[in-house]
Amino acid sequence: TPSVKASDLKAASRKKRFQDVFPVIRDELVAYFDECKMPEDAKAWFKRNIDYNTPHGKLNRGISVVDTVEILKGSSLDDQEYFRAALLGWCVEFLQAYFLVADDMMDASITRRGQPCWYRNPGVGNIAINDAFMLEACIYYLLKKHFRSEPYYVELLELFHDTTYQTEMGQLVDLITAPEDHVDLDKFSLEKHRFIVLYKTAFYSFYLPVALAMHMVGIKSQSAYDHALSILLPLGEYFQIQDDYLDCFGSAAQIGKIGTDILDNKCSWNINIALKKATPEQRQILNDNYGRKDSECERRVKDVFNQIDIPRLYKEYEDEAYEKICTLIDGIQESADSAEPTLRRAAFKAFLDKIYKRSK
Amino acid sequence: TPSVKASDLKAASRKKRFQDVFPVIRDELVAYFDECKMPEDAKAWFKRNIDYNTPHGKLNRGISVVDTVEILKGSSLDDQEYFRAALLGWCVEFLQAYFLVADDMMDASITRRGQPCWYRNPGVGNIAINDAFMLEACIYYLLKKHFRSEPYYVELLELFHDTTYQTEMGQLVDLITAPEDHVDLDKFSLEKHRFIVLYKTAFYSFYLPVALAMHMVGIKSQSAYDHALSILLPLGEYFQIQDDYLDCFGSAAQIGKIGTDILDNKCSWNINIALKKATPEQRQILNDNYGRKDSECERRVKDVFNQIDIPRLYKEYEDEAYEKICTLIDGIQESADSAEPTLRRAAFKAFLDKIYKRSK
Ligand SMILES: [Mg+2]
Ligand SMILES: [Mg+2]
Ligand SMILES: [Mg+2]
Ligand SMILES: [Mg+2]
Ligand SMILES: [Mg+2]
Ligand SMILES: [Mg+2]
Repeated sequence: TPSVKASDLKAASRKKRFQDVFPVIRDELVAYFDECKMPEDAKAWFKRNIDYNTPHGKLNRGISVVDTVEILKGSSLDDQEYFRAALLGWCVEFLQAYFLVADDMMDASITRRGQPCWYRNPGVGNIAINDAFMLEACIYYLLKKHFRSEPYYVELLELFHDTTYQTEMGQLVDLITAPEDHVDLDKFSLEKHRFIVLYKTAFYSFYLPVALAMHMVGIKSQSAYDHALSILLPLGEYFQIQDDYLDCFGSAAQIGKIGTDILDNKCSWNINIALKKATPEQRQILNDNYGRKDSECERRVKDVFNQIDIPRLYKEYEDEAYEKICTLIDGIQESADSAEPTLRRAAFKAFLDKIYKRSK
Repeated sequence: TPSVKASDLKAASRKKRFQDVFPVIRDELVAYFDECKMPEDAKAWFKRNIDYNTPHGKLNRGISVVDTVEILKGSSLDDQEYFRAALLGWCVEFLQAYFLVADDMMDASITRRGQPCWYRNPGVGNIAINDAFMLEACIYYLLKKHFRSEPYYVELLELFHDTTYQTEMGQLVDLITAPEDHVDLDKFSLEKHRFIVLYKTAFYSFYLPVALAMHMVGIKSQSAYDHALSILLPLGEYFQIQDDYLDCFGSAAQIGKIGTDILDNKCSWNINIALKKATPEQRQILNDNYGRKDSECERRVKDVFNQIDIPRLYKEYEDEAYEKICTLIDGIQESADSAEPTLRRAAFKAFLDKIYKRSK
């Protein structure tokens, strides 16, 4: 329909504007290497590290900082405001790049975003560990350069520290629950899944961008941050469960890749809900076939998933989650007469709509 | 002599007091995992990560924070002051643990501090990357918990950020100049060596501990920090050149291990000074034999080092460096009537003496 196309166009131009900020930021980072008189080969390596690993994703997390600042402020941003909001957005993308470079090494992955994983590039290998470290360091360099004099500077730093730690905690649980090379479904459970999802994904992908935007528009009350968190964690959980579901049941066109969670022994929602519902016979099939790098095994797991009717269970979950999140969002009081800026329902609706539409 | 023994005893008891703080800090970190309801296996893993990687080194960097606080304050510390100074010292040790866990992976090292490198423990492997991340995250958790209300809190955070970045920059230059598996002595130079030493070692090992102590005692003037840096970078450089020298020319008893810098293709002071002095014939021998995992090759390199008389060149360097650093230290004005605490020559002398004595 034409209206869909218009919104797609709008999304594309918003993405373009956000992307256009990247070279400016990248050049600032590289300029610091010049100041320090870093050798040319090291400067070139660093530039390639940043360019290869930071700007090629969907950029949803980074763009959502800008979107949220606009909604909370209630007006469009001038060039300087836009740049600063986008810079915070890019800091989230640097954080993600830091995690992903390392995650691909720990998962022994082959490709990421349609290109070889960074560590698989000739001559890179384990140097990618230090490259990941440097992607993280970029965040604090940029925050210091651009936000040092803001009253909320220390809050930004703590927000990144706290979120980084939480994500690493989630990653640890994921790594020892679902190791890439050893299948043990006894370690899986819906509780474990929930912990991994909240810590490994929801804090940094959902809470962090919104909380950054809240600081930027001047929201100070702790209760506003608590309230935002209470909505964004369930939202992040819904997002990840949908992601898990689509990995197995979505079309390649829908998810932009071929799902490999079953082959990769992922602690996904599908396997955890299946383990909960499985008969002893079905459980045995799952034990014998999950996480094997073999498409015949994958097919047997999918057969069990279909016997258990995961698509129906997902539909039930989704209706319930959507309902619950709407109620949480409606609980926001938009007090126009408050002394400081307040939360806006539209900021959260924007997230929910993006996710809910993805499954339609 | 009896006086040496007395000072050794004093050093041992200072180390003991510092070490006794570690379990308290470790338990605080683990308690956070309880608060977050982390699964038991993840909590046990994290505890093992911290215990294995943090407290088993010489602890010079951490202890030097406490020593420097005492000297700058001009009196001994009460229990609470001691704990807080030691906590900052342990943060330096966490930073070092973060670097070393990763460095051992990037260098494909086998042992560290007399035990297998962390990544070589059964079941650990590349999960060590996330474990390194978590060792870094501990720093900011501890600083937030214990220093959040201090006027110099943001300075502590920036100091760790800046130093981390610098160390990673030095590590990058080291990694691409002297890769573990590819020898190219054309990439080496005394200038490159100097850059690596300052960035990879001197900032975090020398400036960071002193700057932390300066913040803790209330020194605010930027010029005091600049002055400290101007002394501590040459001190760090002297320390590393000595370390490089002793790796080849020190006794195993003196350095507590068998040196492997020649075998490991390290961009050490010895090879760089040798390259500068070598005849074309000697250069060829170095090209053909440096960085080969072969003790016969190592012997040929050592022969060239002896022909060039590196021990004499080192002695010349050391005399000059010692002289220069003494002059820098003497340049400190100890104004007793200043409104804020000031630098003390004794703080720097303590470092210099420890290093200078090591070669005696
Ligand atoms: Mg992965
Ligand atoms: Mg992973
Ligand atoms: Mg997925
Ligand atoms: Mg090493
Ligand atoms: Mg190394
Ligand atoms: Mg050495």
